[in-house]
Amino acid sequence: MTAFIAPNLDDIWRAATRIAPHAQRTPVLRSHSLEALVGAELHFKCENFQRIGAFKFRGACNAVFALGEADAARGVATHSSGNHAAALALAARLRGIDAHVVMPRNTVRVKVESVRRLGARIVLCEPSQQARAQALAEVVAATAAVEIHPFANAEVIAGQGTATLELIREVGRLDAVIAPISGGGLLAGSAIAACGLCPGAEVFGAEPTGADDAARSFAAGTLQTNASPDTISDGLRADLGAPNFAILQRLGTRILTVTDAETLAAMRLVYERLKIVIEPSCATPLAAIIRYPSAFAGKRVGVILSGGNVDLDALKFST
Amino acid sequence: MTAFIAPNLDDIWRAATRIAPHAQRTPVLRSHSLEALVGAELHFKCENFQRIGAFKFRGACNAVFALGEADAARGVATHSSGNHAAALALAARLRGIDAHVVMPRNTVRVKVESVRRLGARIVLCEPSQQARAQALAEVVAATAAVEIHPFANAEVIAGQGTATLELIREVGRLDAVIAPISGGGLLAGSAIAACGLCPGAEVFGAEPTGADDAARSFAAGTLQTNASPDTISDGLRADLGAPNFAILQRLGTRILTVTDAETLAAMRLVYERLKIVIEPSCATPLAAIIRYPSAFAGKRVGVILSGGNVDLDALKFST
Repeated sequence: MTAFIAPNLDDIWRAATRIAPHAQRTPVLRSHSLEALVGAELHFKCENFQRIGAFKFRGACNAVFALGEADAARGVATHSSGNHAAALALAARLRGIDAHVVMPRNTVRVKVESVRRLGARIVLCEPSQQARAQALAEVVAATAAVEIHPFANAEVIAGQGTATLELIREVGRLDAVIAPISGGGLLAGSAIAACGLCPGAEVFGAEPTGADDAARSFAAGTLQTNASPDTISDGLRADLGAPNFAILQRLGTRILTVTDAETLAAMRLVYERLKIVIEPSCATPLAAIIRYPSAFAGKRVGVILSGGNVDLDALKFST
Repeated sequence: MTAFIAPNLDDIWRAATRIAPHAQRTPVLRSHSLEALVGAELHFKCENFQRIGAFKFRGACNAVFALGEADAARGVATHSSGNHAAALALAARLRGIDAHVVMPRNTVRVKVESVRRLGARIVLCEPSQQARAQALAEVVAATAAVEIHPFANAEVIAGQGTATLELIREVGRLDAVIAPISGGGLLAGSAIAACGLCPGAEVFGAEPTGADDAARSFAAGTLQTNASPDTISDGLRADLGAPNFAILQRLGTRILTVTDAETLAAMRLVYERLKIVIEPSCATPLAAIIRYPSAFAGKRVGVILSGGNVDLDALKFST
């Protein structure tokens, strides 16, 4: 990997221009009844309506279209069993280049097929971090493809920041922004955009108690990991990335943890009041707003709804 | 009831102005993958995002705010166990007048409570059409409240038509518009707006096979009823109203029937692809587009998504 240079607000503006022909400009929703419930003004940025059903398309699209012609011609590669795989596959197809995606063998078949349908070349590997890293290294060695990491990548972070940029341009100054945190790509991008556009705004990351490496990392001041993540928020099981942690520390971000029961209760409220489909990970910010009301009371809050790729057959609203 | 004069496009424009301070201007969504699936351009008007979660607020709001001061002071009344009850309660509260709602005793408690919370006075009655009509007559006799029928009312029809007016103003000329049909308030309003703004446009009503009185009425040329409606589309069990039928016949509307299995499959597609929460009734238009592809192929189609008030605990996507 080349040296990491943290993106700034200008990079997010450039990302917004770069992805504009391809990404959805997602709507912002509000709910009288939810605002009455929490005592704050809530502006929900609906990335569940983004292409491939999640904010991940912004980062992958920016990273793919930021490549020079020669690099792009080599194709791109990543390992992911989730939304980044689909996002990178679609972005590569839109640019007309190859995408190689390493996925663990135990990935549910429907996810593998959906990434394949988007035109990616799939490489299956054993379900361990080590096997994934090794398979990716082999793909990169064999094809010379450019690795696009799902979160520890400056162009990915800048791309994810465009959701908050759009939100603030649409609704005006916010007092606080909250997004889920896992690897930290979305939250780092959100924090750069929010702190750049609204000096003094507070930025919060919402994290499940069963995968609370970010909360522990902030408490310890050094990067911690999850030994065995245990949460229904399947998009929030990855460990926080080192460059993401550095950005979030510098910008004074705070981490709020929520239980799975709180996440499911918040998810139910989103279905009932906003009438939109979201995945559990995506409900953690609202769960945190409800659990920590004093942090948000009376404020204008931007809530980044990260995605809506939920298994409808397994959908349930309590633990 | 006073003599019924069918509303025209001017009445819908007036309704749009009247309800603008109160109603949501709901978003229009599209889906690349759904359009590829059906081979038509689909513009989904999302009334599940309307206040009280359904298009019904438009009609109730227009009827309540169209009343003169003296009539309004008498309050309004209706019988309904569904979205019209909540819609009328909210509209009355916004105007600062009384709403009396007759509901059958077997209405689920949560629905009764939600209408009560909106400030309506609830009158419970036995669960029969006759008991409902009699209880309403007694309320009107005792209070002098103005009855606002859920669909056989010109101001209600004009109000419901504002959804299609907004849709066409936003996306331009449509070749076809499709909405669910039950009492016919939404479809009559949609047809008046579509035929007025887009001469030559086709208008379709989507109806469950288990409550297909509208299809039979059009086939027979005289109004038919449902002896015992049998459908998961709980919002589509009422019989078509006489004035609504007359409007729809005059405008050349066509009725397309769908099975409950087709409705649930379409509902699943909406959750998966559009990432929004809808109720079964609301999925009948997409089910009809999928069942009768030749009626829509290659056309620009407006699809009125009627509402999103679904019981999340009972949510399922197959029969």
